[in-house]
Amino acid sequence: MTVVNQTPEASRSVWTRERALPLFRNALPESVIVSSPEELKPFECDGLSVYRALPLLVLLPENREQVVTIVNICAQHHIPLVPRGAGTGLSGGALAVEGGVMLTLSRMAKILHIDKQKLIAKVQPGVRNLAISEAVREMGLYYAPDPSSQIACSIGGNVAENAGGVHCLKYGLTVNNVQGLECVLADGRVISIGGECLDAPGLDLLAVLHGSEGMLALVTEVTVRLSPSPPAARTMLVSFAEVGAAAKAVASVIGAGIIPAGLEMMDQLAIRAAEDFAHAGYPRDAAAILLCEVDGLPADVEHETSVLAGLFDKAGATEVRIAKDDAERQTFWAGRKSAFPAVGRISPDYYCMDGTIPRCKLPDVLDGIARLSRQFDLPVANVFHAGDGNLHPLILFDANRKDELERAEAMGGRILALCVELGGTITGEHGVGLEKINQMCVQFSSTEIEQFHATKLAFDERRILNPNKNIPTLARCAEFGAMHVHDGQLPHPDIERF
Amino acid sequence: MTVVNQTPEASRSVWTRERALPLFRNALPESVIVSSPEELKPFECDGLSVYRALPLLVLLPENREQVVTIVNICAQHHIPLVPRGAGTGLSGGALAVEGGVMLTLSRMAKILHIDKQKLIAKVQPGVRNLAISEAVREMGLYYAPDPSSQIACSIGGNVAENAGGVHCLKYGLTVNNVQGLECVLADGRVISIGGECLDAPGLDLLAVLHGSEGMLALVTEVTVRLSPSPPAARTMLVSFAEVGAAAKAVASVIGAGIIPAGLEMMDQLAIRAAEDFAHAGYPRDAAAILLCEVDGLPADVEHETSVLAGLFDKAGATEVRIAKDDAERQTFWAGRKSAFPAVGRISPDYYCMDGTIPRCKLPDVLDGIARLSRQFDLPVANVFHAGDGNLHPLILFDANRKDELERAEAMGGRILALCVELGGTITGEHGVGLEKINQMCVQFSSTEIEQFHATKLAFDERRILNPNKNIPTLARCAEFGAMHVHDGQLPHPDIERF
Repeated sequence: MTVVNQTPEASRSVWTRERALPLFRNALPESVIVSSPEELKPFECDGLSVYRALPLLVLLPENREQVVTIVNICAQHHIPLVPRGAGTGLSGGALAVEGGVMLTLSRMAKILHIDKQKLIAKVQPGVRNLAISEAVREMGLYYAPDPSSQIACSIGGNVAENAGGVHCLKYGLTVNNVQGLECVLADGRVISIGGECLDAPGLDLLAVLHGSEGMLALVTEVTVRLSPSPPAARTMLVSFAEVGAAAKAVASVIGAGIIPAGLEMMDQLAIRAAEDFAHAGYPRDAAAILLCEVDGLPADVEHETSVLAGLFDKAGATEVRIAKDDAERQTFWAGRKSAFPAVGRISPDYYCMDGTIPRCKLPDVLDGIARLSRQFDLPVANVFHAGDGNLHPLILFDANRKDELERAEAMGGRILALCVELGGTITGEHGVGLEKINQMCVQFSSTEIEQFHATKLAFDERRILNPNKNIPTLARCAEFGAMHVHDGQLPHPDIERF
Repeated sequence: MTVVNQTPEASRSVWTRERALPLFRNALPESVIVSSPEELKPFECDGLSVYRALPLLVLLPENREQVVTIVNICAQHHIPLVPRGAGTGLSGGALAVEGGVMLTLSRMAKILHIDKQKLIAKVQPGVRNLAISEAVREMGLYYAPDPSSQIACSIGGNVAENAGGVHCLKYGLTVNNVQGLECVLADGRVISIGGECLDAPGLDLLAVLHGSEGMLALVTEVTVRLSPSPPAARTMLVSFAEVGAAAKAVASVIGAGIIPAGLEMMDQLAIRAAEDFAHAGYPRDAAAILLCEVDGLPADVEHETSVLAGLFDKAGATEVRIAKDDAERQTFWAGRKSAFPAVGRISPDYYCMDGTIPRCKLPDVLDGIARLSRQFDLPVANVFHAGDGNLHPLILFDANRKDELERAEAMGGRILALCVELGGTITGEHGVGLEKINQMCVQFSSTEIEQFHATKLAFDERRILNPNKNIPTLARCAEFGAMHVHDGQLPHPDIERF
């Protein structure tokens, strides 16, 4: 097994902008290179704005050949290379690393080919998620994964983070909706993995590239699976007087054998913020609401809606409203979709977590978060994908007040440790990036972390691609003082049991 | 990039039974070790009986600790180790290698835990596929992947081959129905990957272990996803006077936005063999039949059945029969399920291929197979998963007649090259194993093959786990004389264009 606790080779000699620039100027058109500090500024952070770092250079290749040229220069000179899509990521995965350059794929944004019969589209990595659905709408098709940022985020970034969205409960994550990738490896060679069939021989590199956060290869082409648009959809807005009752209702939906197209939950703080912002008609006095959408054939949708209404009633719902038409359905969703900016209006700062838990543990995790909120004296708004147990607690704080950022970060770490303890994970769809790298030590044993490193090195033995992200060194885990929660055992006293 | 064209370390010194036996006797109970030639005989081949090889020893561990002990001995002494499930594989993946031992997981066959609320079961690798569905049937649940060998094949083997089945069109392959694995690595350490949530952080090792044919790690525990049994199902038997019309009907089903639970096709030779054997009421004069099953809510099933009936009618079907009850539905399937043994009755030997193609290419590939059948003067019976384009042409031959085996093998290779040329793959669900290792050179470029090797070495740097299977060396590809069909370019003149 490869020893991984060593300084990455790529950082052995730290590059400066002045030294790096001529290497790229010699090989690429000037229009591809961004080098002035003021033009670099927009690339200083991703959607998670708490971390900032300026890349030496930003490179904006227009085709695969230029990507290969850039990778070859970086490989030859051991220059760290951070790939970036639209920069909407929420875990610092696309943050520049010291002495490194950034490669942004936003100019490679063509839809190359749509095949209605094969139900696939070939697109370049810079194509926006929603642009695919827009391009095939008239054929009665769409691309299923729908992260909240789908207007802006790009398909290449979706692959890097294995993005989910409201509808992934029924339709799966990005990995379940991509059939093929063309990638440039860390040594500049090109591979083509997967294709137009359900399964492919050889090792499943297609899946391992999903969620690999730009650490294994640079995606230059994506073959996505298109889905037929469901002929009918209906959304229910269900109110509860207690959070626990709403959480139990979620488990009972799935227990009844129904997989809704979406099943979202919001607590009172989130409900009120969203209602003040979006005027979606949400009940301001409810302790929690569920938004539950079913889709499919009209008869099917009608049947499931009536089964679900009965089930919510039995679970103690105080009100079950069924959207009477598509306009009301859109209004119901408008509140949910604006929840993050709405919470942003009521607090100077918030910290969005992304843990997951098995859905039957929802009541426990919400109890635990409420306890931590009192303990750390910071309010939490809960807005999340309840159906697949993917939490998004928003910790509200004010960075200008003494200690509040530190308290928010500490509390966030405790929420993620609680998720792991309940059988869950530290991230559902936002990725590890830089933000949750310490929590990887809580999630995985040293053997598992070493196997991740070995797999990374099988793709990038010089460690030039997005180094020091996603997988912690074992030394870092020792410094963090927490190794692997398993079967409820927490070896380090700093992490208390819940 | 690691150089892979060297002799695997594990084969540097070839072990004999006499030298190897004491190493294992010193560390394991006698009941775990099979060493006499007559007792080893049943382990000489897998379901693909054309290749035979006797292992030095067969080891039958009863628990994870014994698996670790065996792996440690093999690692320390560079003894090749071939893992095996129930031995029903169809590509020689579980065939012994020279100077190597075999580790069979059949005694680790306990269902450890069933969680109805989380919809998961934890099982040992030796549990039979069907045993899981039987154990949860009374809860209204089942395990979806259903390879034809499901009575006998084990879940560990299903993971190794990423097994499919009749219903994988709608419900996915093994990788889509497994949430977690516990594995022993090639150095004896244990990792736990995946778990009870939809997504997990870190690299997606869960997926890369699926279909890895025992080359990366030994699976000692599997957490499978359970599915609610569909409340209703209906099967249609649809006859066509021309194979091409049946093939076009398949593409139009999916094009209409319907994903049947199963969509199978049989041609006349297969229909007649199955009818003579199983008396399923199949039309002996039809050129081809489709078996199409839909499942779900009763109203949904009724609607889809009527849409499909209209669609088949329009596609030129000569008869559309809808099973009137569950007994007739079972009879329709009995013919399909007995097709392989039925063909075995009409020919001394047959060679079953497993290529896939994008489903809209079905008419082309069936034309090409008919042409090859005439060219090589060997009959072919086609029985296959038409919905997902996974072909199973059975080439009929008599091994006792001069050259017929060689002709059958050559023709099989040509069928697979045709599949690749049409945008498909050399295997859909049977794996590469030993049988299709040369065809990997047709499917993949040397860069891709090297990346497979690098990934293999990230798990097993001593190359002790199932060496020389699945991934060809580049030297072997050069000897085979065929490198990578891409965009219809066939670099070697021995492989003609179709």
